Amino acid sequence: MSDSAPHETAPPGTIHPFDVAIRLAALGDGRFAGRTTEAYRNMVGPYGGITAAVMLQALLQRPERLGDPVALTVNYAGPVSDGEFEIATREIRTSRSTQHWLAEMRQGPEGEVPTTATAVFGTRRDTWDHTEARQPALPARESIAALRSSTHAPWSERYERRTVDDLEAGESRGWLTDVPARPLDFPGLASLCDAFRPWIFARRPRRTPIGTVTLNVYFHAAADELAAIGATPLQGVARTNTIHRGFFDQEARVWTPDGRLLATTQQVVWFKE
Amino acid sequence: MSDSAPHETAPPGTIHPFDVAIRLAALGDGRFAGRTTEAYRNMVGPYGGITAAVMLQALLQRPERLGDPVALTVNYAGPVSDGEFEIATREIRTSRSTQHWLAEMRQGPEGEVPTTATAVFGTRRDTWDHTEARQPALPARESIAALRSSTHAPWSERYERRTVDDLEAGESRGWLTDVPARPLDFPGLASLCDAFRPWIFARRPRRTPIGTVTLNVYFHAAADELAAIGATPLQGVARTNTIHRGFFDQEARVWTPDGRLLATTQQVVWFKE
Repeated sequence: MSDSAPHETAPPGTIHPFDVAIRLAALGDGRFAGRTTEAYRNMVGPYGGITAAVMLQALLQRPERLGDPVALTVNYAGPVSDGEFEIATREIRTSRSTQHWLAEMRQGPEGEVPTTATAVFGTRRDTWDHTEARQPALPARESIAALRSSTHAPWSERYERRTVDDLEAGESRGWLTDVPARPLDFPGLASLCDAFRPWIFARRPRRTPIGTVTLNVYFHAAADELAAIGATPLQGVARTNTIHRGFFDQEARVWTPDGRLLATTQQVVWFKE
Repeated sequence: MSDSAPHETAPPGTIHPFDVAIRLAALGDGRFAGRTTEAYRNMVGPYGGITAAVMLQALLQRPERLGDPVALTVNYAGPVSDGEFEIATREIRTSRSTQHWLAEMRQGPEGEVPTTATAVFGTRRDTWDHTEARQPALPARESIAALRSSTHAPWSERYERRTVDDLEAGESRGWLTDVPARPLDFPGLASLCDAFRPWIFARRPRRTPIGTVTLNVYFHAAADELAAIGATPLQGVARTNTIHRGFFDQEARVWTPDGRLLATTQQVVWFKE
């Protein structure tokens, strides 16, 4: 791809920090044990995207799982504490073409629930195909400056985000890549959906404490399609519809450079004032 | 409002069919009993919007509930049978500004789960306010023909949908109203979010069996704001991003005629071929 400069992948023989962060041990009865990692730490607790990824990963580990993820909703009910967690998964129902799941993260001696998730898996079939959304024309990746990462939020070093804020159009557009580069899969795509810079920071450049309360990801590609994409940098467009009485929404579309829409995502974010 | 012709409300002393459909009896332990109604029946089982509304209504009935609905995700795991159902609700976590809930519909002697839902409630506060989304200029309501209702889907008689399909822009725009008119509240708004005609029918005019598998609603107004709106017809814009390998998404924005964004909504829909 002429737009994408060569980018570093993890050295041979090492495990990508993302794969470390979503690593789970099966405990039986649909329960899995994991732990937060420094590489995806946010200012308080882990980055929301990695939590989304590990919730999805738990469901992907279930041997009963049929088909590919089609929709994932992750609710951030409270802070995830650094350290160990358990994810309990429950199959709700399986039909010929879809399968519904519930997952809950639990922590501590009281089993407090910082995160819940629901997911729909679906059997992908060849059908009539039509994409309505139009991919924006983006400048070459190298021509856009990368957002600065923050040492207070180590996760921000795990993504290269070359995006521009178009205040007139009310949207942010650009290129996103895992650092180091990582072949695309569903957990990776789910996590990337939370990596867009909150639009409120562009519209109102002042320090505002924020926190995502719920994140929704719709996957528009099957496993074989994602696997064929590899570690190519992706394109994204993000926008907010409204900032109103303590909460704002943010939505984004994620594209391959050659024009395949991979995911649409939405979230609601609490903000202080 | 010059755009809105007078419209019929339910006769005095009668209960609106919507309120009949979402009526629940508390069973204790966070469980509620309800039953499907003919007025909101779809071809198979109830209209998805009324199921979303009754799941939300169960949560609104919980005395522990704090604040207003901010986000609702409803997963259609299997067909809802006509007749009685139970909704089990569970409070996941309450913080100073948000409260997270889980709800499950159960039916039959085996307690099969046709529907799950998660919801986030939030304390609405006066904050900085900014709407990015732009409301489309719509023709007067009376100038747009109403979609024909179907006797096979009685729910379609419960909404007047005056919408136009703009194939070039890839979106459907128009006016939506409860029939009879009904003062706006959260369950009513949630239900209306599912009333947009599936875009696939505009893009590819042939009979295609479809079914929503998950519906997401973000509410952008507080209870006092909704109450002040009353039974005014609302405006909506709906679009699909992609139709791909057995599923498509659909998203919409719902506005008051005077320019307040009330809700954004997304769903994933299974289709046959």
